[in-house]
This record gives sequence, C-alpha cells and structure tokens, in this order.
Amino acid sequence: MRILITGSAGFIGRKLAADLIRNPVLKDGEGRQQRITDLILVDVMPTPQPAVPRGGGEAPRVAVVTGGLAEAADLVRRPDAPVHGVFHLAAVVSSGAEEDFDLGYRVNLDGTRGLLEACRGLDDPPKFVFASSVAVFGGAMPDVIRDETVATPQTSYGTQKLIGELLVNDFSRKGMVDGRSLRLPTVMVRPGKPNKAASTFASSIIREPLQGQRAVCPVPEDTGLWVLSPRRVVAAMRHAFDLPADRLLAAGGRTVNLVGLTVSVADVVEAVGKAGGAEAAGLIDFVPDERIQAIVRTWPVRFAPDRALALGFAPDESLEAIIAAFIEDDLNAE
Amino acid sequence: MRILITGSAGFIGRKLAADLIRNPVLKDGEGRQQRITDLILVDVMPTPQPAVPRGGGEAPRVAVVTGGLAEAADLVRRPDAPVHGVFHLAAVVSSGAEEDFDLGYRVNLDGTRGLLEACRGLDDPPKFVFASSVAVFGGAMPDVIRDETVATPQTSYGTQKLIGELLVNDFSRKGMVDGRSLRLPTVMVRPGKPNKAASTFASSIIREPLQGQRAVCPVPEDTGLWVLSPRRVVAAMRHAFDLPADRLLAAGGRTVNLVGLTVSVADVVEAVGKAGGAEAAGLIDFVPDERIQAIVRTWPVRFAPDRALALGFAPDESLEAIIAAFIEDDLNAE
Repeated sequence: MRILITGSAGFIGRKLAADLIRNPVLKDGEGRQQRITDLILVDVMPTPQPAVPRGGGEAPRVAVVTGGLAEAADLVRRPDAPVHGVFHLAAVVSSGAEEDFDLGYRVNLDGTRGLLEACRGLDDPPKFVFASSVAVFGGAMPDVIRDETVATPQTSYGTQKLIGELLVNDFSRKGMVDGRSLRLPTVMVRPGKPNKAASTFASSIIREPLQGQRAVCPVPEDTGLWVLSPRRVVAAMRHAFDLPADRLLAAGGRTVNLVGLTVSVADVVEAVGKAGGAEAAGLIDFVPDERIQAIVRTWPVRFAPDRALALGFAPDESLEAIIAAFIEDDLNAE
Repeated sequence: MRILITGSAGFIGRKLAADLIRNPVLKDGEGRQQRITDLILVDVMPTPQPAVPRGGGEAPRVAVVTGGLAEAADLVRRPDAPVHGVFHLAAVVSSGAEEDFDLGYRVNLDGTRGLLEACRGLDDPPKFVFASSVAVFGGAMPDVIRDETVATPQTSYGTQKLIGELLVNDFSRKGMVDGRSLRLPTVMVRPGKPNKAASTFASSIIREPLQGQRAVCPVPEDTGLWVLSPRRVVAAMRHAFDLPADRLLAAGGRTVNLVGLTVSVADVVEAVGKAGGAEAAGLIDFVPDERIQAIVRTWPVRFAPDRALALGFAPDESLEAIIAAFIEDDLNAE
C-alpha cells in the first residue's frame, strides 16, 4: 500500500508517520490487512526525515516532499505509483484562516478539493481520512453537541472544514474516494512552539510550565475545552482508515465527532500543579486576549459522541493521563 | 439601486424581474425604501426582454446580458456602476448536476463563489439573496424537518447548495456581502417545458393536462412533495431582500427553510381533476423511473418552518390556489 500524508511536518503528521512506520499495516477497502510499502510525506514546511527501524526490511520506503497541496495532488495521481490511501491533515489553522481570508480558502477549500480531484483520477478509489475539527460548530448551540446537531460555523476555518466534509461525502457517494472525516477536539498537549491556532494556549499552559518556562493563558479559568491527546488522535486516524465504509454509513455517515474529554482551564492548572508542582502552576500568567477569546468562545465544550463510541473510537482516560503521555513522549524530545 | 439577477432567463428569474419592474422598490441595508434605477439580467440562455410599462418614467432601466456567472461577476464589480443587490438564482439543476459532476461544481460552487468574490470587491457590501433548496436535506431524516435539523445532502446539487449557503454566511460574517439564503421547496407550477430538474414532473402533471396534453409521472401516487408557487417564491425573494440582517441573525441565521405546503401526487391528481375535469386527470400516465425516484425519495416532505413564519414568510393558501394562480398567470401565456 502506498500512503500519502499531507501536513506531515505538523506534530500530528509526524506522530502519525512515526506510528505507521512502527506498525506498517492498514486495512484496504475489502477489510484485508495490507502492508504499507511506501509512505509519502508532503508539507509546505520541510518534514524531518522520520527514524526508520534498521534491518527489518519490512519498514516502508519513506519519501519526503516539501510542497503544497498542488504538489500533493500531483503525487497522488502519478500513473506509475498510484496512492491507496491519503491522510489529509494539512490546513491553515483557525486564527490564520481568520486573518488571511484568501489563504484560508486557497488551502483549506481549494487544496482539499484538488486532492479529492486527484484521487478521483485513480483507477481504484483510495481511502481518504480528512482531519476536520469541532470548529465546524459555533453560534447558538445546545448544551451538549450530538451527532445530529447542525454545524453552524462562526469562523472561516470552521466553514472551510465543513465544506471539506461535504466534499469528502459527495466524492465518496460518487465512488471517487472512500472518505471519512474526523472532527478533532482541541489536541492537547501539542509539543513544540505555539502556533497560529487559537487553541495553542491549551498546550502552552501545560508544556511551558513543565519545561520551567512562563506561559500565557489568554482565556479565563472557567473556559471549557473538549480535548484529545496526540496519541489518541493518531489512533483515531488509523482506526478511521481501517473502518469499513458500510459500518460508517450504517452508523450514520462518514463524518464523526471524535470522543474527547471536557476539561476547564482551572482543571488544567490543577493537573499541571500535580505533575510539576506548585511552582510549575505558578508559571501560568492570565493575560486576557479578546481576539482569541472571541474565537474560543464559539467552540463547543460538551459532546455526546454516540456514533464515535459505537464505532470504537476511544477518549483519553483522564487529564492526568494526557499530561503523563506528554511527559513520556515529548517533554524531553524538545 | 442597481440590482442584478442571475438565472434571469429561468422562469423564476423572469417572474422576479417582471415583479421588480412593476414595483421597483426595495429596502437598502439601513431599511430605507430605495427605487430600483437599473435591473441587470444575466443568464447563459438569452433572457427575453421584459415588458416595461410605458410612460411612467419610473421604471428601471433594464440591461439584458447573455453570459455565465463569470460575466455576472464582471458586471457586479464594474467600477462605474457598482451593484447594490444580487438575486443569485442561476444553477445547474439537481438531475443535471448529478449527471455532470464537473459542470455542477463549476457553476453551483465556483460560480457562486466567484459572484461573492466580485461583491467583496465593492465599497458597499451588496445584499445577496441566494436561491438554495430543500435538496440540501437527504438520507436519514426526522419525520419533520425543523430549522435546526442538520442538512446531510445525498446529491451533488444538494451538496453544492449547502456549500453556497456556508459561503454566503462566511462572506456575510466578514462584512463582504449582506447575504441571505432561501431553501426553496419544489416550485409548482413551473410554466414552459420540462427541464432537467428531478422535480420537473411535479409541474408537468398539472401543466400538461390543463393544456390537454399527456404528462408522465415517474413517481408513485403516494409520493409526498413540499411545494411553493412561483408567486410565493418571488414574494419570498423580495421579502428576504428587504429583511434587516439583524432580524435574520436574531431569528437564528441567514439561512431560511421557506414555508411550503405538503401535498401528495394523489392530491395533485385530484386537484387537476377539480380544475380541468376527469379527462384532464386522465392524461397523467404513471411510468416509474427509478433514477428520478432515487433522487426525489431523498427530499423531505414535512417541515416545521418556525423561523420563516416568525420572519413573515408565507405559504400558499392551498393546492387549489396554486393551480388557480397558474391558470391565471401562465396557462394562456404558453
């Protein structure tokens, strides 16, 4: 199987690639386990060459390509090397798409559509896992978001992700791809540096204090968050790929609200204190930022993700477990 | 005010243009009545020159342009003659978009987006009335569609209309246009010849028998339909234009499920018999067409359109009134 990941330089893309290299098996459209022979990593930022275990001879060949979604589309439709599966993670993030309207539409809408068009040109419709977001929700919402709650996005990013889901559905209905869209909760803890995502603080207030650095929290302590760890996101992407299309359709559709945990910023501060001591918790400075708050306020906090649970997607055990996994996987890797 | 109508050669476009010529007043963004000085009619098909009342001096200047949505976009952004309002009716219809995937996306998605982009270039954001459709609904649905029922389109046409709504919302949120999207029921009775819309039979089985011609009904007698007359559609478009944006937002958003009537094909046959006699009803031949049925079956039949009612949109009085209006407006005009 030849698998392509867009957004492979991002932290989820890197973790997903590493996971697929460690365990290079995915299910094809008939539900048969297939070995991943080739992994094609595409990102506008240079993707670090992933570590490949020595000797085994069973690890996939890895091709690293620095380029945008147009390049990714070209790679998908290479006649000598057709792709069997795509993990489409590349996106201009929430705050970035809100600042640069044209860039957001070019990447998040046109880029996604171009990738689907490239898949459509293949003889065998590839599996297509699309990283959507709970940012499709916004505005007046019920207290608890259900699978049948209408998405009324209040940001350009949320609009573009919802349009991406609709395209994935329509291209799938026509048999051009075998798509599935995952609405990701806020991913916590993101390693590395803060980015332009409005949610970046959710990771900063754990990551920086545990590294002995100050962190800024732009939202009040009672702000709620719907979160999922990078480990669980990677597991969800792999699970979404493996699920048979008819199981998804029987469960209500190709778009899935993932299973997360509801936590408050105050919960996070407390958990940081438990993991790193009172001095760590004391490194979090609350500096209100109305622009960030205006975006974060539109995101839902409570879900009843029955479809995802029925399909076998799993949440993290606890906020403490999320932080422990971060310490194990990423704290010393920085 | 300079008003542009796309799809002006279509029957709703022609009726809307005639109505705006008869009564050339619309409300601007501040709720003030403004005279329509110019009416620009654009369609890929030649638009018949509308009749303009003589003498008055108050009728709008009418410009008829034969061209696609790219031409319409060029007309919107003419620096010497900026447009103040757009009624965007042009579309590749349901069955057409299902047959020609590329054409549907090019017109219904790219065309709509291009028009919004053109509006965005204007100094004053124009009002933008988008003709969407209840075809955005489909698949597993509740018995009664409410304003907060999620739209899960099962056709490319429905997908493209829903994406159009999302774009209208996002461009409006950014202050680039002042948009409103109307989800039109099946419009009945459509004058003229059958077209590629899967719903075309709903008009044929009234129009043809009342003209003494045979009509083919491709769906069974118990097929339900959610219908609205051309008169009410035109009234709804005008009302949607006039409504202040803040009233729409307070009522829940810029997208409105219009108020229609639920009728069955059997009801229609009976009403045709009342209007045209038993011989008229006898001219309807039931010839099942699985392709048409597969599309029509995905459309919802029962709505609770509370938002539209609160905003002052009105349904037809009865099926009999719909047929009487057709006889008065269109039967002898053919």
